[in-house]
Amino acid sequence: MARPTPLSGFPEWLPDGRVVEQHVLEVLRRTFELHGFAGIETRAVEPLDQLLRKGETSKEVYVLRRLQAEEGESASDDKGEKQLGLHFDLTVPFARYVLENAGRLAFPFKRYQIQKVWRGERPQEGRFREFVQADIDVVGAGELPYHYEVELPLVMAEALGALREIGVPEVRILVNNRKVAEGFYRGLGLGDVEGVLRQVDKLDKIGPDAVAELLVAEQGATPEQAKACLELAAISGTDASVVEQVRALAASYDAVTDLLETGLAELRALVEAAARRAPGVVVADLKIARGLDYYTGSVYETVLVGHEQLGSICSGGRYDTLASDGKNTYPGVGLSIGVSRLVSRLLSAGLVRATRGVPAAVLVAVTDEETREASDAVATALRARGIPADVAPTAAKFGKQIRYADRRGIPFVWFPGTTGEDGVRGADQVKDIRSGEQVDADAATWEPPAEDLWPRVVPGE
Amino acid sequence: MARPTPLSGFPEWLPDGRVVEQHVLEVLRRTFELHGFAGIETRAVEPLDQLLRKGETSKEVYVLRRLQAEEGESASDDKGEKQLGLHFDLTVPFARYVLENAGRLAFPFKRYQIQKVWRGERPQEGRFREFVQADIDVVGAGELPYHYEVELPLVMAEALGALREIGVPEVRILVNNRKVAEGFYRGLGLGDVEGVLRQVDKLDKIGPDAVAELLVAEQGATPEQAKACLELAAISGTDASVVEQVRALAASYDAVTDLLETGLAELRALVEAAARRAPGVVVADLKIARGLDYYTGSVYETVLVGHEQLGSICSGGRYDTLASDGKNTYPGVGLSIGVSRLVSRLLSAGLVRATRGVPAAVLVAVTDEETREASDAVATALRARGIPADVAPTAAKFGKQIRYADRRGIPFVWFPGTTGEDGVRGADQVKDIRSGEQVDADAATWEPPAEDLWPRVVPGE
Repeated sequence: MARPTPLSGFPEWLPDGRVVEQHVLEVLRRTFELHGFAGIETRAVEPLDQLLRKGETSKEVYVLRRLQAEEGESASDDKGEKQLGLHFDLTVPFARYVLENAGRLAFPFKRYQIQKVWRGERPQEGRFREFVQADIDVVGAGELPYHYEVELPLVMAEALGALREIGVPEVRILVNNRKVAEGFYRGLGLGDVEGVLRQVDKLDKIGPDAVAELLVAEQGATPEQAKACLELAAISGTDASVVEQVRALAASYDAVTDLLETGLAELRALVEAAARRAPGVVVADLKIARGLDYYTGSVYETVLVGHEQLGSICSGGRYDTLASDGKNTYPGVGLSIGVSRLVSRLLSAGLVRATRGVPAAVLVAVTDEETREASDAVATALRARGIPADVAPTAAKFGKQIRYADRRGIPFVWFPGTTGEDGVRGADQVKDIRSGEQVDADAATWEPPAEDLWPRVVPGE
Repeated sequence: MARPTPLSGFPEWLPDGRVVEQHVLEVLRRTFELHGFAGIETRAVEPLDQLLRKGETSKEVYVLRRLQAEEGESASDDKGEKQLGLHFDLTVPFARYVLENAGRLAFPFKRYQIQKVWRGERPQEGRFREFVQADIDVVGAGELPYHYEVELPLVMAEALGALREIGVPEVRILVNNRKVAEGFYRGLGLGDVEGVLRQVDKLDKIGPDAVAELLVAEQGATPEQAKACLELAAISGTDASVVEQVRALAASYDAVTDLLETGLAELRALVEAAARRAPGVVVADLKIARGLDYYTGSVYETVLVGHEQLGSICSGGRYDTLASDGKNTYPGVGLSIGVSRLVSRLLSAGLVRATRGVPAAVLVAVTDEETREASDAVATALRARGIPADVAPTAAKFGKQIRYADRRGIPFVWFPGTTGEDGVRGADQVKDIRSGEQVDADAATWEPPAEDLWPRVVPGE
């Protein structure tokens, strides 16, 4: 087999990168669990017809085919089997899980889910085709109180904030509300809300003048209506004054509607709670349009400050119908962190690093193969007290054994005492290979410094 | 969308089942890390040609196809793209990872890997098509000392043994050695070692008489040779006397070879170390044939005592060539736990259970929506001290809020003190809804009993 090369779009980490990813996942998971979210995991595949319900994502699905079936050896076995595809997000599988288990779940049901997803993106775009997402959602049966739309972005703010100590930049969660946008556009007399949102979404790419032209040319807006849309999109802020600005703008165009007022009350509640509980993190940004076409209330995007061009690392919103089985409707609100996108940036930009790529804090040296058992016994004693330990692979010269530890970042090398001709075993010694300090030690009592016990994740140099 | 039904072969757990699975995975991971294994994760897909290198598994591969490519919209984008399939184990991807990163890994490289794998098994067999495996392997560059063949099954014995406290039955790790079997057969004059192993593997299914007939009919063995094979297969035991039995048997047939002696020395080292470090767990069983056709040294299978018909839950062995790039060869030894098979049995047989399916230890009640903020503040204070807390979804009657906690197994309900007409807020109270006991409490200092803090996994009733 020739030396294999990486597959574009399928990221993998070396062991020290995996230490970083594991740490990120553990911090997220702990935060989610402290907030009462139950962990679930769904299968990687869904029936293709379920995955294709949203037209726009259909092109991204990887379809599965059993090789055996392809060969025609037993095609009849597959009769009645649904065609399967890999899930491209964790929302579609969650909605299906909720319907499938509705009778056995308690609602509102708060769950987190951390899994890989797959998207058959065009290879030349350099996008990830396989990546890890970390989602939280709350789903209700029939109804779901608005306050969850306030709480969920704050949970994410806390989770991402907990990563700041390892060197993750601060985040801004940008929020908007479908009811505000729709209420405003309808108040202006623009009925094709999705169409207007689609044009406004191009603001960052093509600028306000071009968006205004498109609103006129494609959505049939008057120049004044187009101007109003752009003025709305220009509003942003971290406190309730945003709400007053929107209301004043709408009043100046005689565009205040009940829907707008409902949306503004919601947006105010979110901004006020956020200002109290996570000051400076949540920004109402009325130009956020992406997602507003399928979410029905709040919508969220998140940028890493200083890495805005990375795009959103945590997005989501409110669905009035996350799932429905015809009889019951399940509204939901949730957000999803793009863990691979985040970790990839953390590693490539050198923002964080692992103190080592192997768990072992101690390498137990082997004096000669005849006494390997004594070295194994030391390692066993250390492990029994929760100290990760490795044993040297061969009874090479100690210099070579120390290099084994050094190459892996293992801070301590343990030398079992040798048994003299008098049959008495000398004291064990442990060497800190960074300082060179070597002291007598007993495997039943010795402890490494707490910061050396396990690999840690710390800010990059 | 109609109520969906489960897909056969794709297991999923309800939240309390997932608590069990998570716990099992954490215990395994901790044991692996204490022994110095570094965690890695590989992508879910491999080029199809890599997956098909072992003929016998080719039928099990799920092949991926981009839906977009299928539609012919941009087939040219796919030019030069390799056909991809989902991995069916974690050994093939690990071998590829080792070759791809050989220059950046330190050898011997000890890694663990816990991921899903997929096999397109025939649907009617009721086998898992998606399941979690937990693998450990050690791989060397050019050489790999034998002692790893002793250590790795002992790591698994420790990992599985650590699960006994939650109610997992004890395990027996059955070991054999390719060199013993091959040395014995060759000493007898039977050259088609794979063929003999294939027949011996049928012992449990068809019995010794039928196997003897097959050895004569298909492998060209004499009745005496067939008898010798069956006598070898009948030997088992937990101490070094096994080695003497095999040697005596071989001597009686004048079938002692150098290869047999090498294998017996290895088997003795394994059995002796195991008897010392994990008494009673490891059994030398000379009838183990499965895997011996592709492993080159030790081979391992593991049964749950009392659940032997479940088959092996942890298997593996030694490869002299785990990977090779033509220039360098990487020998390896490893074992793989079938986590889904194990967890599925634990749950279906009621051997273990989670004390609850949600993380929250406390539900903070909401007196009325106007004071939800006070309830949120209590939850925030509890979480800041590491106590998982949920807040009631609505300000329903307290009885209904207590039922919310009860349905989820949340042991404590917290009642924020109400503010009287004099503006003074009364004391908060917390109720243990199991005993009904309700006491004054302060969110800054109150602690639940340690056993209630997080969901635990305990033996079933």
